[in-house]
Amino acid sequence: MDDLREKKGFIFDLDGVVYVGKTPVEGAVGTFAYLRETGKKVRFITNDSSRKRVSYFAKLRDMGIECSKDEIINSSQGVAIYLENKYKEGKCFVVGEEGLVDELTQHGFEVVEGKDGERADFVVVGVDSGFDYEKLTIALRAVKNGARFIAANPDVSRPREDGLVPGAGAMVAALEACSEIMPEAVIGKPNPMLFDIAVKEMGLRESEVAGVGDRIDTDIVGGNRFGLYTILVLSGITKKEDLKSLRGEKKPKLVLKSIAELRKLL
Amino acid sequence: MDDLREKKGFIFDLDGVVYVGKTPVEGAVGTFAYLRETGKKVRFITNDSSRKRVSYFAKLRDMGIECSKDEIINSSQGVAIYLENKYKEGKCFVVGEEGLVDELTQHGFEVVEGKDGERADFVVVGVDSGFDYEKLTIALRAVKNGARFIAANPDVSRPREDGLVPGAGAMVAALEACSEIMPEAVIGKPNPMLFDIAVKEMGLRESEVAGVGDRIDTDIVGGNRFGLYTILVLSGITKKEDLKSLRGEKKPKLVLKSIAELRKLL
Repeated sequence: MDDLREKKGFIFDLDGVVYVGKTPVEGAVGTFAYLRETGKKVRFITNDSSRKRVSYFAKLRDMGIECSKDEIINSSQGVAIYLENKYKEGKCFVVGEEGLVDELTQHGFEVVEGKDGERADFVVVGVDSGFDYEKLTIALRAVKNGARFIAANPDVSRPREDGLVPGAGAMVAALEACSEIMPEAVIGKPNPMLFDIAVKEMGLRESEVAGVGDRIDTDIVGGNRFGLYTILVLSGITKKEDLKSLRGEKKPKLVLKSIAELRKLL
Repeated sequence: MDDLREKKGFIFDLDGVVYVGKTPVEGAVGTFAYLRETGKKVRFITNDSSRKRVSYFAKLRDMGIECSKDEIINSSQGVAIYLENKYKEGKCFVVGEEGLVDELTQHGFEVVEGKDGERADFVVVGVDSGFDYEKLTIALRAVKNGARFIAANPDVSRPREDGLVPGAGAMVAALEACSEIMPEAVIGKPNPMLFDIAVKEMGLRESEVAGVGDRIDTDIVGGNRFGLYTILVLSGITKKEDLKSLRGEKKPKLVLKSIAELRKLL
């Protein structure tokens, strides 16, 4: 089933694919309306662990893109599901923002702060604009005391309105360095877990799903490894001149200027 | 000249060797008095970039160990000398504490803060208990803008009275990760630069000097690479049970319980 027309489900990355910052990609609204009309299933996956899932839902609706809350999957939810499946319960020390705290709490985990963090069962690390030496010290002591170290995603940096800022991967690297312990799991793309949640929730098989993203190392590599039909769009971080050197698992099945073109191919 | 008795100069690490935290190692005062009496030259080298050199001098004098300010060499001074020799002048954004700011300023470099840091010529990274996301963001943008990235030392963690805390190496790892740029130089031990400063200032050759330390990866590896007669003391971080696996550049020439024993061998 290697024909795009036969795909029953589509997994979209968000920033750089559906919108860029606060602006929807031109033609995005029409593409999603068309996907709904033709009965295609849709999921949105983001490696960003900082915001609550409901905030993405609200953002898409405000842009005129119909979607339900359950169609959005982020790395915070992935972390919470991973911990729930593997350990059921426990205390978490979080290097991260409200998106991560919210998902962990909703899945029955206790989030501890300050000195109590040193005795946590899990240290969960996502991007955190409140990251500081004190948090790093607590995280260091917790993992040295035996806490399991879980990374929400591997992205080392990300664009912000005012310029480039560090991503979760920078906080993960700091903790890896001082503790000399590697994370037990890195949940975000290219890790297959979020794709797996999306495909299972749609009730489809990998071969029936296309994955659409703007980043090679997360969206395309992750999608290829998981067995999706991968579509790279050039509306985000990857530019036309980056395409020459793509081989093996970095090579997308299809390259489009943006998701506006997707509609014409279905 | 492989006999300890013939050595004319001695380089000592500080914490774990001369004192442990606030307490002098038993016999340290007598050993240093004996070294002075017998006309041996002495230098103290520390990878700690956080404090001003004068504060180590005061600490040693308070413990009854005679020394002069010029006998103390730290990685902050090493960074300042490195930059001065190679680039003469420029603006530095510092992830670090007063020891680093003080040395850079004394060597004629301008230390810039906040948003101005994004246009600095150098990003200098040492241990910083005020490290946070904002500083990491400025450092990231500066190195992306072409600033040269210099690390004060590679130590990933260090003991503090209340437990383990992150070292300069953790801050360096965070910046390496998000910028995807490696430091141009990592000045502290095992880098030979601080040993080189010490040996030259004593007016001796490497073969005439013994290096005394408590850490394998910095003091012993660095000393061996530089061609010193290396002495490992067990009064600090390395314990008797760690000795079995030491081979090659990790193997000290001599192992002593503490520097108290050194006096008997001279």
